[in-house]
Amino acid sequence: MFLTRDISPARLKSMTLAEKNKLCEEIRSLLVSVVSKNGGHLASNLGTVELIVAMHSVFTTPRDSFVFDVGHQAYTHKLLTGRLADFGKLRQEGGISGFPKPSESEHDSFIGGHASIAVSAGLGIAAAKSLNNESGNVVVVAGDGSFTGGGIYEGLNNAGKLKRSFTVVLNDNGMCISKSSGAFASYLSKIRTKSYYEAKSRVKKILGRSTLGKGVSGAIGETKRFVKGALIPENLFENLGFKYFGPVDGHNLEELIFILEHVKTIDKPCLVHVMTKKGKGHAPAEENAGHYHGVIADNIPQHADTYSEVFGKEITRLGAENGRICLITAAMKYATGCNYFAKSFPERFFDAGIAEAHAATFAAGLASGSSKLLPVFAVYSTFLQRAFDQLLHDAAIEKLRLVLAVDRAGLSGEDGATHQGTFDVGLLSLIPGTTIYAPLTAEELRLCLKKALYEDAGIAAVRYPRGIAFNPQNEEARADFAYYNNNSSTLLITYGRPVKPAMKLLRHGADVLRLIRLNPLPDEVFKIVSGYENVVFFEEGAPCIANKFSAKNYKFRAIEDFLPVADLERQMELCGFDERGMKEFAGL
Amino acid sequence: MFLTRDISPARLKSMTLAEKNKLCEEIRSLLVSVVSKNGGHLASNLGTVELIVAMHSVFTTPRDSFVFDVGHQAYTHKLLTGRLADFGKLRQEGGISGFPKPSESEHDSFIGGHASIAVSAGLGIAAAKSLNNESGNVVVVAGDGSFTGGGIYEGLNNAGKLKRSFTVVLNDNGMCISKSSGAFASYLSKIRTKSYYEAKSRVKKILGRSTLGKGVSGAIGETKRFVKGALIPENLFENLGFKYFGPVDGHNLEELIFILEHVKTIDKPCLVHVMTKKGKGHAPAEENAGHYHGVIADNIPQHADTYSEVFGKEITRLGAENGRICLITAAMKYATGCNYFAKSFPERFFDAGIAEAHAATFAAGLASGSSKLLPVFAVYSTFLQRAFDQLLHDAAIEKLRLVLAVDRAGLSGEDGATHQGTFDVGLLSLIPGTTIYAPLTAEELRLCLKKALYEDAGIAAVRYPRGIAFNPQNEEARADFAYYNNNSSTLLITYGRPVKPAMKLLRHGADVLRLIRLNPLPDEVFKIVSGYENVVFFEEGAPCIANKFSAKNYKFRAIEDFLPVADLERQMELCGFDERGMKEFAGL
Repeated sequence: MFLTRDISPARLKSMTLAEKNKLCEEIRSLLVSVVSKNGGHLASNLGTVELIVAMHSVFTTPRDSFVFDVGHQAYTHKLLTGRLADFGKLRQEGGISGFPKPSESEHDSFIGGHASIAVSAGLGIAAAKSLNNESGNVVVVAGDGSFTGGGIYEGLNNAGKLKRSFTVVLNDNGMCISKSSGAFASYLSKIRTKSYYEAKSRVKKILGRSTLGKGVSGAIGETKRFVKGALIPENLFENLGFKYFGPVDGHNLEELIFILEHVKTIDKPCLVHVMTKKGKGHAPAEENAGHYHGVIADNIPQHADTYSEVFGKEITRLGAENGRICLITAAMKYATGCNYFAKSFPERFFDAGIAEAHAATFAAGLASGSSKLLPVFAVYSTFLQRAFDQLLHDAAIEKLRLVLAVDRAGLSGEDGATHQGTFDVGLLSLIPGTTIYAPLTAEELRLCLKKALYEDAGIAAVRYPRGIAFNPQNEEARADFAYYNNNSSTLLITYGRPVKPAMKLLRHGADVLRLIRLNPLPDEVFKIVSGYENVVFFEEGAPCIANKFSAKNYKFRAIEDFLPVADLERQMELCGFDERGMKEFAGL
Repeated sequence: MFLTRDISPARLKSMTLAEKNKLCEEIRSLLVSVVSKNGGHLASNLGTVELIVAMHSVFTTPRDSFVFDVGHQAYTHKLLTGRLADFGKLRQEGGISGFPKPSESEHDSFIGGHASIAVSAGLGIAAAKSLNNESGNVVVVAGDGSFTGGGIYEGLNNAGKLKRSFTVVLNDNGMCISKSSGAFASYLSKIRTKSYYEAKSRVKKILGRSTLGKGVSGAIGETKRFVKGALIPENLFENLGFKYFGPVDGHNLEELIFILEHVKTIDKPCLVHVMTKKGKGHAPAEENAGHYHGVIADNIPQHADTYSEVFGKEITRLGAENGRICLITAAMKYATGCNYFAKSFPERFFDAGIAEAHAATFAAGLASGSSKLLPVFAVYSTFLQRAFDQLLHDAAIEKLRLVLAVDRAGLSGEDGATHQGTFDVGLLSLIPGTTIYAPLTAEELRLCLKKALYEDAGIAAVRYPRGIAFNPQNEEARADFAYYNNNSSTLLITYGRPVKPAMKLLRHGADVLRLIRLNPLPDEVFKIVSGYENVVFFEEGAPCIANKFSAKNYKFRAIEDFLPVADLERQMELCGFDERGMKEFAGL
């Protein structure tokens, strides 16, 4: 066993190459067992084991800083930097986060839940080191999917003129959650095949003449020549001021260490193009890395349709009726249920890559002029945050008609603060003329979607949470509000997940007003509220809709902070959105 | 006179080259006279006269669609498409907008006030044409400054695989409002000098052999060869799937028409690299295009310091005291007053280009870990919208300390809806742990800035409007609130521009509570409010802070829509924020 409780970057550095390779195998089997149990990102972490072992062989955190873009590829880094003992509590309450988290460890230099930010963050870290006269390198790791986002380009553009060592590792697994799209992906596949084997064989040849391990540095004199040869002249990264190295076999520790040792010595920004295989070493994950992208823990039943599935099937049915409906996703074809529509109407389906800003503006372009097209953008609540300006400026000023299918709205459970979907209602209600629906049941989701497509003007958003869609027998589907009146003097108002516990309080002397259209609020809602002595609002989000009420004895409870990692039920409890907490707060 | 009331693209098409060149001169002198009077963007419009005349010579709007990125370069397009008669009312109430505006003319295919969106919008328009089986080309015009923004990259990445004609004109004037920064700018200057004259002379030679005007198409058979020769092999745009043409002299109508005629025939995305001179043909604007970027109308006095100047001088003073303060701008060095600091402390000043998302993440990187640096990001309110996710995810979750200097907060006057700064308070108050100040006076701005730097945790924003800073004699500077108590029964609460008219209502039987720290609101504020019979809130922004109050007789007036173009005073009146409107609403 090389993966023991006292594994550390220092111990790692003293291992032989054979020992390190053995360590990689051990890490791989630990990843498979823990992630299968706790959920998390399996395939991407299996792909980066050697890369991260190589990084810790060459660099020393926290003096050197590692910035992982979309940090769900960083589990190996966590294992090597003091978090092996806690790894069994990955993504669990009191345990460790599924993403890099500076407040969890000094070895995590920057947070990483959203894509395409790491070059910018790394550049900030590098500038801080320079200003503080500190030594230390910065190594950014970003997947090829992240390169479909404009943020990476902004980062590269600003980094290209640096006069210090700065390494960006492009972790190229040819996947962008489902499949990379766009011209950059084609470009990568071109440079990938062009010189890969040639470069590899040259590395082998030169390595053969040098001593390995620490002796590798002896070969560095020769490196320049062969690395120069492996370069594709004037490639895209070089145009942006980076020295380009690659492609490198991302599962060959020897090669990885050799290249990283070399770039460490270069006082210029370098891009190391590393080829990895998502799911490497675990047959089921290798075969279907898309499915294994985010593994849901074993114990969650998957029989009934999720809200995403309900949306996906309904938009496909509507798309068959109406050839003007177009569907857009930002690299979330499967996760948002867009796969059905994509299969049936490929010419009306658009995958923008991890580029929410583009997706929103593109949708506005589709809807503009006299096109009469009906674009629907399916997007996670947390990623919609990246398109606020585009929705406001590009779509809303000219009152273009867009539909937003806002998935994963509300608390995010084990995914933690980086994916908290509690801001979309606040954001969207700032945009003039925007309609927001929060359907509770599958049937309501279908009804609201139809209204958003055919009745509302401007931007209309239908938001729904992660999880199995509620499918009650005796609940009439509505698109405005539902009022459960027991002639009580206390009225509970809510939407989203607190609805279910609120309904249980019906038998404890409360009436319940369940909001479906959050913006604009139906006038009747204010009339109903005005008749109560005691009004209590529960908002599973930043206080926004709750702020629009006032009444004689009015109070509200909302989410005013980031939640710690925990399962959904526990997060609801932490927010005071469990039956007991709500009962107490309402004074029932 | 070729620029007559009935000028139209059709008439333009029938002119000879000499007549068109004469027309360009006439347009230029009209631009100088109107912009000098009404304000607006002079230098950028002087630079695009020939380009736009060439575009209308070759393409036919609205069948073909022109999308102008940051459309303040599109005045010539407005003149040629039916808006000559109204041009005297440019940027005035009831007149025409300074930016393209589809609701103003069918020739304006997409709105354009913010940068780097036009490729995405144009791609949406192209997709709509394809789905609707419509013919027609799409021509996007984007300045080199816009290419520092990630949105352009996302657009190019998604457009690169198109199988239809799609033209992006890179209008390269080597400026990005002040001066392009970053590796892309260096890259451009490289390809600019490389083949410019050679390409030009070849064009000349071939053109010499063909008949001009309509006969140009006869030369197209030969074009491919020479254009191919002018290409820089494997350049950045080609890597992203575009055919590259250029550089082309952007003031040579003959060349421009020739190239555009050619790209029109190509069923692939094309990038035409056009070299223009900002301010072309108007000596003062040519000499100092940065100063002439946005011309303020003649009649506004410029003696006292603006809020931007107050900020710029104070942050420079503080920067001299404290070497940990860093200043970041997104291509707005002069407009936000960052020039003083930049000059004194160049190593601590960072211009990100038009890349607000990068700027925010970079600032978070600077502040991260143990750096103890104090990054300040100076940004217009309307552009801050592009960094919401970065502030929330990259900075706020880990409670990094950032200061935002939010300039141009509130109504935008003649700049119109695209630049309306009425959303920042709503956005920022959604972010957990964020402090927001809205100082009224120059002294308060300084005080709040100091608190933001040294006392607050997390993100702290100081927001202030466009215009001359208020510098009263007898107003104590505060950072929480100011309370003017006349023992009235009506309390007016407000911040921002409505403060001045509210103060005038002191003598009409109102008390006034002027908010300075908007978030978190000082506890005393709620105490004061609870003592009044009649409470009225005026919010120069989306209803946000106003929503946090409730009292016995409480009402508020806020900005719930986009304002039409008008001067500030008139916009205040339209919002009901003039003395009379406020008096009436408050029932005084």
